[in-house]
Amino acid sequence: MEVLEDVQSRPDPRAMIIQRVGIRAVRHPLRFQDRSGCAQSTIAQCNMYVSLPAHLKGTHMSRFIEILNDYADPYSVVRFADVVERMRQRLEADSACLEMRFPFFVQKAAPVSGVKSLLDYEVKLMGEVTPAGYQLTIAVMVPVTSLCPCSKSISEYGAHNQRAHVWVHARTRETVWIEEIIDLIEAEASCQLYGLLKRPDEKYVTEYAYDHPKFVEDMVRDVALRLQNDQRVTWFSVSSENFESIHNHSAYAMIEMEK
Amino acid sequence: MEVLEDVQSRPDPRAMIIQRVGIRAVRHPLRFQDRSGCAQSTIAQCNMYVSLPAHLKGTHMSRFIEILNDYADPYSVVRFADVVERMRQRLEADSACLEMRFPFFVQKAAPVSGVKSLLDYEVKLMGEVTPAGYQLTIAVMVPVTSLCPCSKSISEYGAHNQRAHVWVHARTRETVWIEEIIDLIEAEASCQLYGLLKRPDEKYVTEYAYDHPKFVEDMVRDVALRLQNDQRVTWFSVSSENFESIHNHSAYAMIEMEK
Amino acid sequence: MEVLEDVQSRPDPRAMIIQRVGIRAVRHPLRFQDRSGCAQSTIAQCNMYVSLPAHLKGTHMSRFIEILNDYADPYSVVRFADVVERMRQRLEADSACLEMRFPFFVQKAAPVSGVKSLLDYEVKLMGEVTPAGYQLTIAVMVPVTSLCPCSKSISEYGAHNQRAHVWVHARTRETVWIEEIIDLIEAEASCQLYGLLKRPDEKYVTEYAYDHPKFVEDMVRDVALRLQNDQRVTWFSVSSENFESIHNHSAYAMIEMEK
Amino acid sequence: MEVLEDVQSRPDPRAMIIQRVGIRAVRHPLRFQDRSGCAQSTIAQCNMYVSLPAHLKGTHMSRFIEILNDYADPYSVVRFADVVERMRQRLEADSACLEMRFPFFVQKAAPVSGVKSLLDYEVKLMGEVTPAGYQLTIAVMVPVTSLCPCSKSISEYGAHNQRAHVWVHARTRETVWIEEIIDLIEAEASCQLYGLLKRPDEKYVTEYAYDHPKFVEDMVRDVALRLQNDQRVTWFSVSSENFESIHNHSAYAMIEMEK
Repeated sequence: MEVLEDVQSRPDPRAMIIQRVGIRAVRHPLRFQDRSGCAQSTIAQCNMYVSLPAHLKGTHMSRFIEILNDYADPYSVVRFADVVERMRQRLEADSACLEMRFPFFVQKAAPVSGVKSLLDYEVKLMGEVTPAGYQLTIAVMVPVTSLCPCSKSISEYGAHNQRAHVWVHARTRETVWIEEIIDLIEAEASCQLYGLLKRPDEKYVTEYAYDHPKFVEDMVRDVALRLQNDQRVTWFSVSSENFESIHNHSAYAMIEMEK
Repeated sequence: MEVLEDVQSRPDPRAMIIQRVGIRAVRHPLRFQDRSGCAQSTIAQCNMYVSLPAHLKGTHMSRFIEILNDYADPYSVVRFADVVERMRQRLEADSACLEMRFPFFVQKAAPVSGVKSLLDYEVKLMGEVTPAGYQLTIAVMVPVTSLCPCSKSISEYGAHNQRAHVWVHARTRETVWIEEIIDLIEAEASCQLYGLLKRPDEKYVTEYAYDHPKFVEDMVRDVALRLQNDQRVTWFSVSSENFESIHNHSAYAMIEMEK
Repeated sequence: MEVLEDVQSRPDPRAMIIQRVGIRAVRHPLRFQDRSGCAQSTIAQCNMYVSLPAHLKGTHMSRFIEILNDYADPYSVVRFADVVERMRQRLEADSACLEMRFPFFVQKAAPVSGVKSLLDYEVKLMGEVTPAGYQLTIAVMVPVTSLCPCSKSISEYGAHNQRAHVWVHARTRETVWIEEIIDLIEAEASCQLYGLLKRPDEKYVTEYAYDHPKFVEDMVRDVALRLQNDQRVTWFSVSSENFESIHNHSAYAMIEMEK
Repeated sequence: MEVLEDVQSRPDPRAMIIQRVGIRAVRHPLRFQDRSGCAQSTIAQCNMYVSLPAHLKGTHMSRFIEILNDYADPYSVVRFADVVERMRQRLEADSACLEMRFPFFVQKAAPVSGVKSLLDYEVKLMGEVTPAGYQLTIAVMVPVTSLCPCSKSISEYGAHNQRAHVWVHARTRETVWIEEIIDLIEAEASCQLYGLLKRPDEKYVTEYAYDHPKFVEDMVRDVALRLQNDQRVTWFSVSSENFESIHNHSAYAMIEMEK
């Protein structure tokens, strides 16, 4: 085979560090293991970056895909660091960053009938290794019901309610499971969602939501209080976007806290 | 200037008619005039196609953009035919098809306070001219509140409600304005939406929705009855997608009718 | 437990058949088995509808989720009919329709180095059972390289090329595998795509694309010829959307054929 | 009219500041004026937030919409501060933040024929006023052609190329126009895009791109050098996402610099 020049390895005269270079929007099937211990199959949207020193012209894009294809173990919030470190070493870089976003399913039991069904959440893991060390940010989106206290308070009957997306981003000093974040968000919502509800369940969630009205401000404050009190969490943000049933736009609130 | 071969005009040996060839996903600013007579500025996502006879290798893509750029008048459901016919002639084709999708704004007054604000709708116009004649399909998406009759009926208090997207597609023998379709959909919803609501308005829409519960099935049937009785309409479909506040999926129904 | 009225089973006075009612945008994890015989895990976006006769007020939405949760076998183009028929029976309907859209992965070997990597495709299966029988429509989206013959022909060197999305929709009288449709589309592209390419592979695909220029019109005609000649196929459409590297819009062509 | 309690104004016991509360995903038509001095009509996706002190239960969501509806002048990078300050005052808040994202059109002349056509860009303006002062971040996305130097170098003929999205985010101490950012990005691309190209233009852009191959790393470094040398710019980031024509994923690079 003829020798093809490695153009990316030429020296570069511009003296400009690149903080992130790599590949983006790669879909990849993987298994992900959380608190339950059993690995579920999912499909992640992956971004993989490394830093590039000022004297190098380019990185080696194909190595990112090799790493994805070679890593056959289940992913988890614990093992994520291994893949990021593997990226840093394989690309011979100072820093490496791996972002994966994927649907995560939990089997839930309906509140009265107990019938079981899956609910889908969104998870994003962002792991970064730099000369200063390794940092993982966990993000979980939990869809919930929000019911408006103002609407309830001023109306003779009824209250507008809607689906809302609550995102928590967190950095921790000890392992915090995805399911733990889901649980704490669902505990603070006007009501949690279910895939499957029989009539007695529908009566239950309707009345439960009416009994637990929350402004978008209440939702983020109540979740933030729980995260503030969790000693494992060192930094977090919590936001809620309520897809208002009476408007064609969203209500939104966000709290961020460095502890 | 040297003569560059017109590769697209070469003969083609495959004897295969192409029903649609052209450009897609072009963003274009335009003015659109409806019932009110005054033209609003909007930005359309445009698809422009013609048919290609079996003996021709390719169409002339740049002419589509020329037509968009040359047409300076306001668009309307009435004048849409002119642009489609211009496409057919300029591309020397048997058939031509123009699809435009754009946001459409209406100023509404809140139901109690009367404060005014804009609400945004989605409009799609699809005009097609063939040897058999010209056909326009008008489509309008109206976001509304839907409130669940089952939830209301079985619960001591409250009722789950949510935003829903109601689409009407229609073909007509006489002009039907976008605003007319918006009005008839909003009249049949559990409640219509507003950009701006003061507290007395919020009380009103909360109670109005509670007083007008509708299944997704009711919504499409009630809109379909109105379209069935409108003598100007020759064909229609109506669908509603309700973004359920108690689930993470939608309820959906659709009726189509050739009259 | 108190008896909660089944509001959906009330009679309906509007005498209006609903062609499609059900649930939409449900994410569901499943295994899908194709030509290779081994089932891959994927996540489908599901729409599930039945028809509703004029005298019934509503359908039973929760049964759709029960069917999804109860069906534990791998899905396939062959077994899809079972799930659709199960829907029709469980909902006591005349007609039922199941749409599933999911990513589908194939391991490919790079053309020179032979290194292996996954490529992701989009698959849609739409199965419908009516009193007239069962009909399955298979749709596959294959991302490919397209290289412009005009640009090549008129330029001293180079030729603009870009990613394109080729969709085939097909109805068949015998089983046609997803992989067969992928293979025939990739055989007709300027070049096929790979997840992982080493330098000799990159040289190969660059030159291969330059040697196989195709207009968007050529792409759909060449795929259409193959589908026209496949005796198993009774109806098809093929479209290509080329995300032009010299414009900010797409070139597009579509052929549909009832045989 | 009865007096309806202002629930949002109740005191709040949780002692938790909310950094951002307001509305999100509001579509709003507006006029935007840039370097040319003449205002173009566009449609913005708007997010509007204020901070909420720890002792207040909620903000007044309807005031955000009032501000949008009341502001009738053209927007510009200069006048953006007025709207943000109006938000802060009207909501009686310490901090206010306004984000608007909208398509921005420029009429360009093709490089050889000189024929004119529009090209669409994406603009995001993010203005924030806090007790520390006002800060505007301007972001512009310019779609361009990228042509791979490695592919060109190792191949006998041809080179893979594709559309890329280059984003610049910038903070400045003096006015920098949107058009200036567009111009500097387009000057550094393998080639700029046009809505309309005649055959001599297509020959020109094909050969120009082949003569200006750039890795994704080159693209961001060359734009970063220009921004580094612009004394008006105090902070910037530049990223490029190349929608590779030989893969089904993107190549990506990003440089951020505080000056």
